[in-house]
Amino acid sequence: MDWRMTEDAEVEVNLSPTSETEQQAPHFLRDVIFHGKFKLLKALTPEETSHSQQGLYLQDGQRRIDYVLTYNVKKPGGGRSMRHSTYLLTENAVARSLRRSHHKRDKRARLHQAQKAKAQLSPPSPTVADVELGCAGETLNGHEDHKAFRREEFEAKLRDMGLVLEKDEDGKIPGLGFVKIHAPWNVLCREAEFMKLKMPTKKVYEVKQSSSVVEKISSLVSKALEPLHPHVEEHRPKNIKHLSHTFTREKLHLFDLSDKDSFFDSKTRSSIVFEILKRTTCTAKYSMGITSLLGSGVYTAAYPLHDGNINKESPESSDRKLLYEEWANYGVFYKYQPIGLVRKYFGEKIGLYFAWLGLYTQMLIPASLVGVIVFLYGCATVDDNIPSMEICHPRNNITMCPLCDKVCSYWRLSTACGTARASHLFDNPATVFFSIFMALWAAMFMEQWKRRQMRLNYEWDLTGFEDEEEALKDHPRAEYEFKVMQKSMSKDKKTKHKVEKLTFRDRLPAYMTTVVMMLLMIGVTFAIVFGVILYRISTKAALHMSSNPVTRSHVQLTVKTTAAIINLVVILILDEVYGAVARWLTVLEVPKTDKSFEERLIFKTFILKFFNAFTPIIYIAFFRGRLVGRPGSYWYVFESYRMEECTHGGCLMELCIQLSITMLGKQLIQNNLFEIGVPKLKKLIRYIRSKQGGFQEEERKKKLLRYETDHFLEPFAGLTPEYMEMIIQFGFVTLFVASFPLAPLFALLNNIIEIRLDAKKFVTELRRPVAARAKDIGIWYDILRGVAKVAVIINAFVISFTSDFIPRMVYQYMYSPDGSMHGFVNHTMSYFNVSHFQDGKEPMEPLYLGYPVEICRYKDYREPPWSLTPYEISKEFWTVLAVRLAFVIVFQNVVLLMNDVVDWLIPDIPKDISLQIHKEKILLVELFMKEERVKSHILESRVSAGGPAFCSRSNNNNNYTTAHPRSSLHTNSTKSF
Amino acid sequence: MDWRMTEDAEVEVNLSPTSETEQQAPHFLRDVIFHGKFKLLKALTPEETSHSQQGLYLQDGQRRIDYVLTYNVKKPGGGRSMRHSTYLLTENAVARSLRRSHHKRDKRARLHQAQKAKAQLSPPSPTVADVELGCAGETLNGHEDHKAFRREEFEAKLRDMGLVLEKDEDGKIPGLGFVKIHAPWNVLCREAEFMKLKMPTKKVYEVKQSSSVVEKISSLVSKALEPLHPHVEEHRPKNIKHLSHTFTREKLHLFDLSDKDSFFDSKTRSSIVFEILKRTTCTAKYSMGITSLLGSGVYTAAYPLHDGNINKESPESSDRKLLYEEWANYGVFYKYQPIGLVRKYFGEKIGLYFAWLGLYTQMLIPASLVGVIVFLYGCATVDDNIPSMEICHPRNNITMCPLCDKVCSYWRLSTACGTARASHLFDNPATVFFSIFMALWAAMFMEQWKRRQMRLNYEWDLTGFEDEEEALKDHPRAEYEFKVMQKSMSKDKKTKHKVEKLTFRDRLPAYMTTVVMMLLMIGVTFAIVFGVILYRISTKAALHMSSNPVTRSHVQLTVKTTAAIINLVVILILDEVYGAVARWLTVLEVPKTDKSFEERLIFKTFILKFFNAFTPIIYIAFFRGRLVGRPGSYWYVFESYRMEECTHGGCLMELCIQLSITMLGKQLIQNNLFEIGVPKLKKLIRYIRSKQGGFQEEERKKKLLRYETDHFLEPFAGLTPEYMEMIIQFGFVTLFVASFPLAPLFALLNNIIEIRLDAKKFVTELRRPVAARAKDIGIWYDILRGVAKVAVIINAFVISFTSDFIPRMVYQYMYSPDGSMHGFVNHTMSYFNVSHFQDGKEPMEPLYLGYPVEICRYKDYREPPWSLTPYEISKEFWTVLAVRLAFVIVFQNVVLLMNDVVDWLIPDIPKDISLQIHKEKILLVELFMKEERVKSHILESRVSAGGPAFCSRSNNNNNYTTAHPRSSLHTNSTKSF
Repeated sequence: MDWRMTEDAEVEVNLSPTSETEQQAPHFLRDVIFHGKFKLLKALTPEETSHSQQGLYLQDGQRRIDYVLTYNVKKPGGGRSMRHSTYLLTENAVARSLRRSHHKRDKRARLHQAQKAKAQLSPPSPTVADVELGCAGETLNGHEDHKAFRREEFEAKLRDMGLVLEKDEDGKIPGLGFVKIHAPWNVLCREAEFMKLKMPTKKVYEVKQSSSVVEKISSLVSKALEPLHPHVEEHRPKNIKHLSHTFTREKLHLFDLSDKDSFFDSKTRSSIVFEILKRTTCTAKYSMGITSLLGSGVYTAAYPLHDGNINKESPESSDRKLLYEEWANYGVFYKYQPIGLVRKYFGEKIGLYFAWLGLYTQMLIPASLVGVIVFLYGCATVDDNIPSMEICHPRNNITMCPLCDKVCSYWRLSTACGTARASHLFDNPATVFFSIFMALWAAMFMEQWKRRQMRLNYEWDLTGFEDEEEALKDHPRAEYEFKVMQKSMSKDKKTKHKVEKLTFRDRLPAYMTTVVMMLLMIGVTFAIVFGVILYRISTKAALHMSSNPVTRSHVQLTVKTTAAIINLVVILILDEVYGAVARWLTVLEVPKTDKSFEERLIFKTFILKFFNAFTPIIYIAFFRGRLVGRPGSYWYVFESYRMEECTHGGCLMELCIQLSITMLGKQLIQNNLFEIGVPKLKKLIRYIRSKQGGFQEEERKKKLLRYETDHFLEPFAGLTPEYMEMIIQFGFVTLFVASFPLAPLFALLNNIIEIRLDAKKFVTELRRPVAARAKDIGIWYDILRGVAKVAVIINAFVISFTSDFIPRMVYQYMYSPDGSMHGFVNHTMSYFNVSHFQDGKEPMEPLYLGYPVEICRYKDYREPPWSLTPYEISKEFWTVLAVRLAFVIVFQNVVLLMNDVVDWLIPDIPKDISLQIHKEKILLVELFMKEERVKSHILESRVSAGGPAFCSRSNNNNNYTTAHPRSSLHTNSTKSF
Repeated sequence: MDWRMTEDAEVEVNLSPTSETEQQAPHFLRDVIFHGKFKLLKALTPEETSHSQQGLYLQDGQRRIDYVLTYNVKKPGGGRSMRHSTYLLTENAVARSLRRSHHKRDKRARLHQAQKAKAQLSPPSPTVADVELGCAGETLNGHEDHKAFRREEFEAKLRDMGLVLEKDEDGKIPGLGFVKIHAPWNVLCREAEFMKLKMPTKKVYEVKQSSSVVEKISSLVSKALEPLHPHVEEHRPKNIKHLSHTFTREKLHLFDLSDKDSFFDSKTRSSIVFEILKRTTCTAKYSMGITSLLGSGVYTAAYPLHDGNINKESPESSDRKLLYEEWANYGVFYKYQPIGLVRKYFGEKIGLYFAWLGLYTQMLIPASLVGVIVFLYGCATVDDNIPSMEICHPRNNITMCPLCDKVCSYWRLSTACGTARASHLFDNPATVFFSIFMALWAAMFMEQWKRRQMRLNYEWDLTGFEDEEEALKDHPRAEYEFKVMQKSMSKDKKTKHKVEKLTFRDRLPAYMTTVVMMLLMIGVTFAIVFGVILYRISTKAALHMSSNPVTRSHVQLTVKTTAAIINLVVILILDEVYGAVARWLTVLEVPKTDKSFEERLIFKTFILKFFNAFTPIIYIAFFRGRLVGRPGSYWYVFESYRMEECTHGGCLMELCIQLSITMLGKQLIQNNLFEIGVPKLKKLIRYIRSKQGGFQEEERKKKLLRYETDHFLEPFAGLTPEYMEMIIQFGFVTLFVASFPLAPLFALLNNIIEIRLDAKKFVTELRRPVAARAKDIGIWYDILRGVAKVAVIINAFVISFTSDFIPRMVYQYMYSPDGSMHGFVNHTMSYFNVSHFQDGKEPMEPLYLGYPVEICRYKDYREPPWSLTPYEISKEFWTVLAVRLAFVIVFQNVVLLMNDVVDWLIPDIPKDISLQIHKEKILLVELFMKEERVKSHILESRVSAGGPAFCSRSNNNNNYTTAHPRSSLHTNSTKSF
């Protein structure tokens, strides 16, 4: 329809209402409009049918409202009522003029007429950009007029497509008009055919269990799990499934059309209408789809309706109420989710999200069990652990070098006894096993999800449906179209080339901004981590100087905990900031389609949030305590702050503290405070306000019709934030699991709440989203895979570098005189001659321990002062390093190989599902072959009646041309039976 | 149709011919059969139309032969002519009896009648197993009878499906009968609809280049590349493409049916017939499809026909001749392949193989270029290489420890000068770059292939077609069905359960055999490698003992080369053995479908061949020279053979020799000798034989009809061997590319021949394969990915462990006094005090060099004899090891990350293709919307003629039931225009 653009780029959009709409509405719909108008006039009396009362149906109480568009109307009163009546006049004029012009259906004729009409009637109009974005320079009324005309045109086109529209401007909400859209049966059929919807046919078949033993076991299991299932009766018996086939009007007899009202359910109806809305465009200077119309304020909102109230008092049952009771309810947290119902109500895309979340939570149960066992193993063996025993033993009391310059003094290793014992909880051989387990767990999770997805695809009749097709239907976003229009206008002045799209050069500034901003943001993250390090170093030094012995003894704990909390707060704040920045950057880039927008946004958000969440943790795991130097030549930041050291065996401990605080804090605060608290707070504010308004608001709300109530709900903003939250959590569960085996448990507890929280949000707080078909979770699966892969490498490094696992192994098998761990602590520490301290750096209280110190010890593999090369890195260091690196290589490759094996061993399609699909195909072929046979039977009987024509055709297929009319004949004959 | 099996499992299959076929052939086809018979009787006179002469058409010269089945008939003469006449009688009886029974179409009735007939007529019949496999215990004639009856039944069913059959038993080949199958138009239409074939519609659209600049460049490029394109006129102009749509008889008006003969091309016709053949089953005691019939010898072969002769003299042009001239011809080796034509003639699956091979060869061009440059860089810098200069320098002449016990003596390092210089060619910094390059090259290749595949999918109208569907159509293999039948028979005696499939337990013995055999075969490979090692060690020792100085000086080269040749011969022999073993093991496992068979076979063959090809190479790369021990405590095999050492810097050199000999030898011998030579040899033998037979054979062949000629060609055995060969080659190109930069060049040269060789084979030597649809190359892509992944790891290890790259780096940056490489050679060698030799191991000629030796040197990082821990592994060793391992980790992860980035950066679907697909979709929707509009227009005009019925429907959609007949009315009306 954009031929106008090429032909005459200067045609103005501002056509007078009469001439414009007169051309657009097809003549055979005039009666509909008239009918609607009469209804509209006599409508809105308080007594109506109960259906209409609820606002789910059009005024006749029979036809369901499938979609609602809202727009702003001026409130009656003052000069504005004048405008309103003009508008009504316009509608009448449309109807009248329709009668006049219903034979002129040629587009070009219409255009010429429209141009003439414009020349005659319309005042000098504003520029297109003004119309679109509502810039200043035009009176409000004129501006509103344009919008009304645009609406008229759009609605006429909708009627052209066969939709039934009903307007309501005098509802209980002043200033708001509603266009209620209903799709009649023939439109539904046509669109279902276009969209290649798979619908159940009349043919049913039995879903058989593979063998009797398996059947018995599965029935036993399902009986045992009975209380865990939600009380949602699935309509069809479980063992019977309807054969599905792509809907086509030519094979209507295949489908069960006994109840045409419910053949297409409400989510399908609304998505069909949405499809039409997306396709329909106003042919102004440039085409405007529904997104552009929404973007430019011609309409304010577009949404399908919820199918009922969730109030307990309302007696009618609806899917929504059922979902509210059996799903969006903390009381049923232990139950499975009614995924089938969720899909039925919200569509496949949202159904898949909740199915994924459910599987993830389910899979967390074994992970957290094993995690707890590993933790308990650590607890149980803490007293048998030789290294920590040696540290705690008062006899071999080693004098350690001071932890900071001057103010700190020498200290005894036995004071680190507590930390050493605690770190054993997280740093024992079981941890290695656990991180291998978790890597395999992640692979299993992926595989299980693929299988679950396949099963759902089968159950939801999505097999054979291609995501690509869905993606290709994606229309350009309003912002993109506007940008292209702007570009084409600025180009028009120079050349006459038509601009069709944005090139890389157009987007270059935005890309540059993105790169710079992303680097800046990551820089900010690094800077903040560095800031926290400085805070830790300086505070520690300051607290060490304190004369209060209690303060001094609690220095470590205080500093660690406050630093972790600071980190957490920063992470939470930056999370919000980064979310906003990512969105802003993506808007700048003006992606073409919604899908592209979503992907770019996800990509940016993911990178920023990931850096934000994991930079401090990565610092602690891999850099802290490594960039220290050695006594006598420490490394300094800003020439005065010595880099921080870990206490003996303490880096893993600190990592653990940081991880648990970040994870718990993020979940508690982001989920519970933000997601539960904020809506509660909003409600409270509303309540207080309504009290001030004298209950008017509240009472009025109760009387509102369905479509009016839904207008007050929040619009659905996509699943990205929900997925993102879970992915970051998945990162916490897998990435550093070697150092924190309790992570899966925390995640599990959080998710049990999260499912119901999200469910509540979808059922009660959001407008009903348009159902979207989807076969998989798209980009999220790839991100999950990526996280799981990175997790393997990070865990390899945590085990080999952060924990003392490798040094212990090396000591035990290469250096230990008796093959035991005795002497390990001594082996890991080097000697330092205190006379080698730099001037001014030696401790101020050398006699703090009560005896003079000549040699102090520090944790490193270096040559002793008496060797030929004092303080040089020793052979042991290189040995341990080589073993560490070898462990990384072996761990990474073995685990990745095991992942591949798991991937290969577990078939992507569950056996029973693949059998069922196969069976379905065979049944379908049989069905059609039967049909064929009936056809040929009929043909035959006709032929035998009319003579032996068939034989001659079979033997002498030279006369092909005669076959064609005959075959069309027999398709006709099939139709009629 | 297997309800018979359940109902009465004991019904015998041996029904008398009359009663059996009488029931099966549908009555309305009797005339066809009669017609055919009359033709048959009057046929086979030498004068016929030219079409029929060539044997491409049925006797009427009009109807194309789409498929041929052959079977053995007894030669006329003696008691056998008697049998032959019986057979003819049978056919007559069929026709007669058909007249009698053509009203009884109910299956059950037929069965009962058949059973009665059997009871009356047939003699006591043999067991089913005997019938099937032709065991002894039954006379040949009776056995042949059974086969004939089976054929009758099968062919009757084929006629039932609408196919036209023509028999020819009196052709020029005695003892061979042909069933020529033709698919008439209505059958083609029906099956095309079932198979969801996409066919071109009448609607054409222009394929536009994205912008004018790009267009110009691309036209320039294509003009420059013009001579490289084969002279194959594609029928449609390049910028115009037909919109394709899934074929359906309801929308026949969409398709261009002006020439119905060529609407379905020959490959589509034959694949449609093949589809019907696969679906049709004889209902004996158990159903037998075409595979079972072929397997049990009822038919001997089934193939579609080539479409013409390739003789230069024959004037008619055909696709085959064109392919022969423009593709299967060494003269056009520099040209692109006419992939479109290949696909048109052989179908998508084979087209994809050649497209893949073509892209691989194309991609090898840059790889071999860079490889040659790297090699030349090595050549150019060999004189600047300090380590080899130091080795060759006569002044710092280092005395080395003897290379073998007793017979060898001390030697001077400068004698290794040649090897050192040669090894620099393959061991220089450029090699590291090259192996990174090749890893990226492999990733690029994968991506390019994905894109090429997508482009071909688009051009070949495969978008939207699902591989799954194809896979699901796969029917069980004959062997599987037979096995199930056997099992069910043995079970029948015990229980009454029906056996439907083979369980894991049934296959357990086969699986056990597979595992044991695979391990055994791998063991054999290892044993042979070990044997070659022993050969090398012992021969070297023996040759060292020789008194001839020339022999002694050539020891190294002789031993290396002969060992490599032995290895090569063993690899070549084992390759054939392993291929056979893998096939045998797979047959043992009785996989259900052909696809499963193929996958299992590929898996086994791949593992065995891979081990076979790469075990010796892996040994040389990673183990040789590492398991040596040190002077004074060498390691011994069988207590007398010292493990072999590499010469200085020589392991890489040896690896290189081994690689080049294996690769070149494999390619030259396997390709050229086996693939070219063996067919030539066969031809020669045939020629000699025909000379003996007095040219009879030759002359007769010239007169043969097409279907008779094709019978003498080899059947098509699948693409597995072709792909396998290429994958192993891909392994050589990528796996050890760090040590042999010329591998891509050799591969390129080989592939240029390989393409034409394979093409020749397909065009001239094989029967025409049934065209198979495929969207991708399936499992091979995964295997390629796997090889590319393993290549990254192996290259990392080759660089860090086999080459001296890391030690050089470590020396230069950690130990070198002046940051140069001077002193590197000295640094890598440890000292040995000759007095520490074990008794009896010291050299017999200690004064061989002319001076007494006290300290000799050997290549290792060990403490000198004068240190506190003599001959212990030194700190340098650990340092180098740590750096080596670190390099592996960094290399592996960086390269894998880069691969992922390449994967992510290059979109899988080329931009222009995705735009075209989008455009096609839109055009299709527009087309249908236009149709809709026309429909509604017609409906409207009818309604306005019949009264204002439509309005009432729009406003009052309550009466849905009335809408249905009306909508069927308007679909009818569409049909008729």
